[in-house]
Amino acid sequence: MNIGILGSGVVGQNLGAVLASRGHDVVLGTRTPDALDAPRGHGGQSLGEWLQQVAKRGRVGTFRDAAAHGEVVLNATNGSGSLEALRQAGGAQLRGKILMDIANPLDFSKGMPPTLFICNDDSLGERIQAEFPEAKVVKTLNTTNTLVMGNPRQLAGGDHTVFLSGNDPAAKQQVTVFLKDWFGWQDIIDLGDITTARGTEMLLPIWLRLWSVLGTPMFNFKVVR
Amino acid sequence: MNIGILGSGVVGQNLGAVLASRGHDVVLGTRTPDALDAPRGHGGQSLGEWLQQVAKRGRVGTFRDAAAHGEVVLNATNGSGSLEALRQAGGAQLRGKILMDIANPLDFSKGMPPTLFICNDDSLGERIQAEFPEAKVVKTLNTTNTLVMGNPRQLAGGDHTVFLSGNDPAAKQQVTVFLKDWFGWQDIIDLGDITTARGTEMLLPIWLRLWSVLGTPMFNFKVVR
Repeated sequence: MNIGILGSGVVGQNLGAVLASRGHDVVLGTRTPDALDAPRGHGGQSLGEWLQQVAKRGRVGTFRDAAAHGEVVLNATNGSGSLEALRQAGGAQLRGKILMDIANPLDFSKGMPPTLFICNDDSLGERIQAEFPEAKVVKTLNTTNTLVMGNPRQLAGGDHTVFLSGNDPAAKQQVTVFLKDWFGWQDIIDLGDITTARGTEMLLPIWLRLWSVLGTPMFNFKVVR
Repeated sequence: MNIGILGSGVVGQNLGAVLASRGHDVVLGTRTPDALDAPRGHGGQSLGEWLQQVAKRGRVGTFRDAAAHGEVVLNATNGSGSLEALRQAGGAQLRGKILMDIANPLDFSKGMPPTLFICNDDSLGERIQAEFPEAKVVKTLNTTNTLVMGNPRQLAGGDHTVFLSGNDPAAKQQVTVFLKDWFGWQDIIDLGDITTARGTEMLLPIWLRLWSVLGTPMFNFKVVR
């Protein structure tokens, strides 16, 4: 499958590598596709190293290249840059496609731990859906560390939860299949329409505190019921 | 042990009944202690019925009566009424005591589902601690339904998580003992100081959506690690 990933930080790189290893054809989109030697955000390797890692299953391009390439598009940019990255990708390249939104509206400008720059009565997922109405936005995977996202079974055999928020039931059904087939997710809860992204984005404050207290990002929430 | 509970809705009633059944001496505080026949908030029975339920182990009084009685005080009021209830209880009645804050800053005034009237860079727990600096505020239990709060073992044998936030380490240690001994909690995570109450209060939006999707409030989060 042709998959476009927006964002070349550690989240985009890691999901891209997992998807490439599963035989998918990945284009990783970035603002700076020519800077192959530069270190990338949040501890990501350089894109030159990433290209070696994924061999011929992945390429690097602009946000527009990645979106045009993808039958499905993943938004793995920083939340603060997501809307601008999607504008550069272009609405025409997203039209009719599933856009899996993994970003969180973290605001690092006021010190640590970050606050959210949108929350409570709005969400980044909703803003993206509003600005790109022809994309089928499905908010998901934004409540776990990237290593858990891409390989949930390495934590407690996968016995923990991932959430979906989106307005298009068929798109959420398709994303459910992707999460199972691509990554091995087992417990997937559809929370409802895109406004429910408020709930998953607002998990970030406790997630960040847990990271600090537990001393590792290798944890996740399980909805016990 | 003498325990004061502020709030006569279903949360205060249920926790009071559990504590009374464990042999503690409970005073349930309410704005209207004489209205024994009136139905109480969130599906609570009347206080007359509650008094019958707890027999001689519980009494009903004002917020001030409850706080004065308690060696430890539980805030089980609606978040929107918490500060006013605590003012009626009086700082002198809270001085030096552990105040377990179970309330959430839910704003029902803008329709359903409720938003939070404080969040992101502040929390109800912090506001309470700031206004009552001589109380030892420990935010806890606010992330589960009252039936799970008071009897966690009835859900998955108790294999799920409750959180603590507060500035006083000894008070949190004491509350850890209370949660185990009173209710049977097993997995208790100390998130840090009272600012971490932002994280647990901000769990409410996803909690409310999950209630809707799962069709039952009998669930909880487990931090899988």
